[in-house]
Amino acid sequence: MVGGSALLLNTMNAWGMGIASQAVAPPQLSGSGKGKKIVILGAGLAGMTAAYELAKLGYDCQVLEARHFAGGRCQSARKGFALQELGGETQHCKFDQGQYINHGPWRIPLDHQSTLYYTRQFDVPLEVMVNENDHAFVYMEDAGPLSKQRLRGEQLKADMRGHVSELLAKSVKGGLLDQQVTQDDQMLLLDYLKHEGALEGPELQYKGRSGRGYAVNPGAGLVAGTPSDPLGFRDLLAAKVGKVYSAVQDFPMHGTMFQPVGGMDQIAKAFEKRVRRHIRYGAEVQSIRQNAEQVLVTYKDAGGKVSTIGADYCLCTIPLSVLRMIDTDFTDKFKTAIRGVAYAPVGKIGLQMNRRFWEEDERIYGGHVLTDLKAINTISLPSTGWQSRKGVVLGYYHYALDAIEVSALSPAERAQFALDAGEKIFPGAYRSSFENAFSVAWHRVQYNLGGWAEWTDDGRKDAYPTLQEGEGRVMLAGEHLSYLTGWQAGAIESAWQQIEKIHRRAMA
Amino acid sequence: MVGGSALLLNTMNAWGMGIASQAVAPPQLSGSGKGKKIVILGAGLAGMTAAYELAKLGYDCQVLEARHFAGGRCQSARKGFALQELGGETQHCKFDQGQYINHGPWRIPLDHQSTLYYTRQFDVPLEVMVNENDHAFVYMEDAGPLSKQRLRGEQLKADMRGHVSELLAKSVKGGLLDQQVTQDDQMLLLDYLKHEGALEGPELQYKGRSGRGYAVNPGAGLVAGTPSDPLGFRDLLAAKVGKVYSAVQDFPMHGTMFQPVGGMDQIAKAFEKRVRRHIRYGAEVQSIRQNAEQVLVTYKDAGGKVSTIGADYCLCTIPLSVLRMIDTDFTDKFKTAIRGVAYAPVGKIGLQMNRRFWEEDERIYGGHVLTDLKAINTISLPSTGWQSRKGVVLGYYHYALDAIEVSALSPAERAQFALDAGEKIFPGAYRSSFENAFSVAWHRVQYNLGGWAEWTDDGRKDAYPTLQEGEGRVMLAGEHLSYLTGWQAGAIESAWQQIEKIHRRAMA
Repeated sequence: MVGGSALLLNTMNAWGMGIASQAVAPPQLSGSGKGKKIVILGAGLAGMTAAYELAKLGYDCQVLEARHFAGGRCQSARKGFALQELGGETQHCKFDQGQYINHGPWRIPLDHQSTLYYTRQFDVPLEVMVNENDHAFVYMEDAGPLSKQRLRGEQLKADMRGHVSELLAKSVKGGLLDQQVTQDDQMLLLDYLKHEGALEGPELQYKGRSGRGYAVNPGAGLVAGTPSDPLGFRDLLAAKVGKVYSAVQDFPMHGTMFQPVGGMDQIAKAFEKRVRRHIRYGAEVQSIRQNAEQVLVTYKDAGGKVSTIGADYCLCTIPLSVLRMIDTDFTDKFKTAIRGVAYAPVGKIGLQMNRRFWEEDERIYGGHVLTDLKAINTISLPSTGWQSRKGVVLGYYHYALDAIEVSALSPAERAQFALDAGEKIFPGAYRSSFENAFSVAWHRVQYNLGGWAEWTDDGRKDAYPTLQEGEGRVMLAGEHLSYLTGWQAGAIESAWQQIEKIHRRAMA
Repeated sequence: MVGGSALLLNTMNAWGMGIASQAVAPPQLSGSGKGKKIVILGAGLAGMTAAYELAKLGYDCQVLEARHFAGGRCQSARKGFALQELGGETQHCKFDQGQYINHGPWRIPLDHQSTLYYTRQFDVPLEVMVNENDHAFVYMEDAGPLSKQRLRGEQLKADMRGHVSELLAKSVKGGLLDQQVTQDDQMLLLDYLKHEGALEGPELQYKGRSGRGYAVNPGAGLVAGTPSDPLGFRDLLAAKVGKVYSAVQDFPMHGTMFQPVGGMDQIAKAFEKRVRRHIRYGAEVQSIRQNAEQVLVTYKDAGGKVSTIGADYCLCTIPLSVLRMIDTDFTDKFKTAIRGVAYAPVGKIGLQMNRRFWEEDERIYGGHVLTDLKAINTISLPSTGWQSRKGVVLGYYHYALDAIEVSALSPAERAQFALDAGEKIFPGAYRSSFENAFSVAWHRVQYNLGGWAEWTDDGRKDAYPTLQEGEGRVMLAGEHLSYLTGWQAGAIESAWQQIEKIHRRAMA
């Protein structure tokens, strides 16, 4: 693993991994599924999408869900929510009424029209999730001359772009680019650079700008405001913090970003309300078999009783990390494909704070505090309950080795780990405001064993299309069968695609 | 007036005129105002702030308000709201229940802690006002090769910064800046430029990036997504559209921006609820006189009856555009100072649409469509009611000559004017979705006669400090006595400053 700002950039890439989605509505299917039985494994968003759409067509849908609630990874931890990681103690969420953390998916990009299709259909109210906040801190320990400073994103953007604009503008004016750029274009370019970089005077100098913040803000009476001084170009270069941002947010991280009012699980609940009658809860799949006539799924219920369901088709949305351990009669090729993808170790922690010090003291309203503090990556601030008393902060969001290391800690130790880091960025406030925590390490969560599928290029070429095809009467669906891995849209759109195939076969 | 993109930039500057505020809480005043009487002229935010704070100190406050409701310019037009501009017909707002337009102030910047102080004190719920949306269109008619295209902000940002980064990176690699930048810094700079501009390969070329949008979005199954091609550098330069944005949003336009849930007038109502007992409505000030003992304010009530109030002090928050026409015994110097500031002609129109086509068809969720279409400047999309059926669009927001010209039209003609423009940007949807409109031309609104005070540099030096001092027992307050003109924070902070002076004198 790399350290410093490169680490942060890896994080940014991981955030952006899912990119955007294409499908905007479920397939328009005609005909009737009457008399056809489908067993759907898993009541996450993929499974519930399939059950909802296929039941409308008349299919007899039976969803087997190992947990006692639906939603899969679409969860929100709030008072009463409990989680026992494999080999760990049970955490009971102790947040105050109304407080929660979206410890699974937490963002709905505007490009994910499939997810937005259902929030609209199901009247799930949305609010803006502040995914970009230039007023939030960037705090780096390994940033040379700018180490351990609470910089603001707007300072980095204004100053880096200001200095770079000045450099280029002076080069143009000095005739250094006369071979590269026509005289007319030079004039247009200078005009652009002056604006982009807020360059002043005939010297085209960058001397700071209001967008980076004032030293003393303007106000009433005779307070016209005192400008602030820019960070130095060489310091910024040496610190490498300019790379925290780029020209635009990469897909699908650009605004407008949404979250459901009251927690991401409002989406799961909206689905569940509509398909609950099809779901058998506490049903843990033991085996999948098929023959010429049907597919047979054996499952164990909460009481330990083993039963078998027969169906015409099976749509299996179980994560491949779990499916690989289930007894099936898939071909070796298919089994190899299932094992052909790794699942991301991912960890998150929610910290309930008794005071919104980030708003009250620092005027940071939502968004992400970016840092290279080990295994923290981001401290993300809630985009709801503005100006209210308490709030739940996302204390870290990490992947890979970081996630594995921190997941070895007990819940209490994880909270201390997060507090140690946060206290460096919000000294005097972070630890003293802390009330209680709820953490998850998705790779240690039974029935998930990872945050999301991480395909390699080779896997995409080989295993991926094999799994995409399904085998016999069994089709697979989930975020893992999409180019939107780690996103709810991947699960939904994958289900849309696979039910279309199932329906086509059923109608044949 | 200039046309083309320069017009747009003027608009951006006008938006940014108010910059940020300094004061975060009312002055801590000790002692008692018991037995002292203050007459406050105007129940806008300045007047109500003063009444609220002074009444807490025990002052006998009497607020005279010409209108039959409080709030001043802090208004929201919704069903039942009526407005008759001077010399115009009465508009009755016909929006559906729940729909509204903030035709006065519509944004609360995070820097305006004074405004946020009261939304917090008064439990006025806030939501994010999407003030920056790179996915919204930029539509220019005078942009050379890019005229009449529906560009997206993210395309302009990605492509301009990509091309400029490529140009500078190649110049550095080609040794053109060897005299200007050390070899070490060149390496760091190249590293930054590659990231900022998404430069690819050893040639450091900008070939587009995901953040500018895909041609075909990635999705489920085998849909990996098809990248989109960037706009050409020379076209972008010739179009001058790169100047629509700059390195950062200038103060105070950066995120996070807020609006009260349910309309800006929720702030006015929250104040009014707390100071209503002090307000005399329908009381139009006729004259202001003072002598050694007291200040005497004569006002006419709705029935035409003229009365006089005597008080120890008067805090006059009447806009200077109106105050200049009131009979006073101010000195000539003071009267000249009152006349020393112009008020901005400003117009806005709300258009109720029966379908949120901007969300459904174009995936634009809030933010501003920027345009050089005459007298439009921006079409701004609602930041509330996401994915619901209807919405009220801000059809134009204009100033100066544009505002004067359009204000000469009847309300129905103004709506047609706005629809003609909007239809060019949203063809087939804008006009057909339109239901009804509500417009305001603030310079034609009685008791305001302008949007806000527009100080010149000379005025700030001369008239401004004179007015700031007040005269005798009369003090002035309002956005016009701040460096936050046009913002609610200016009114509030000005009131804070002046009540402190009044209290000091009263205690002396």
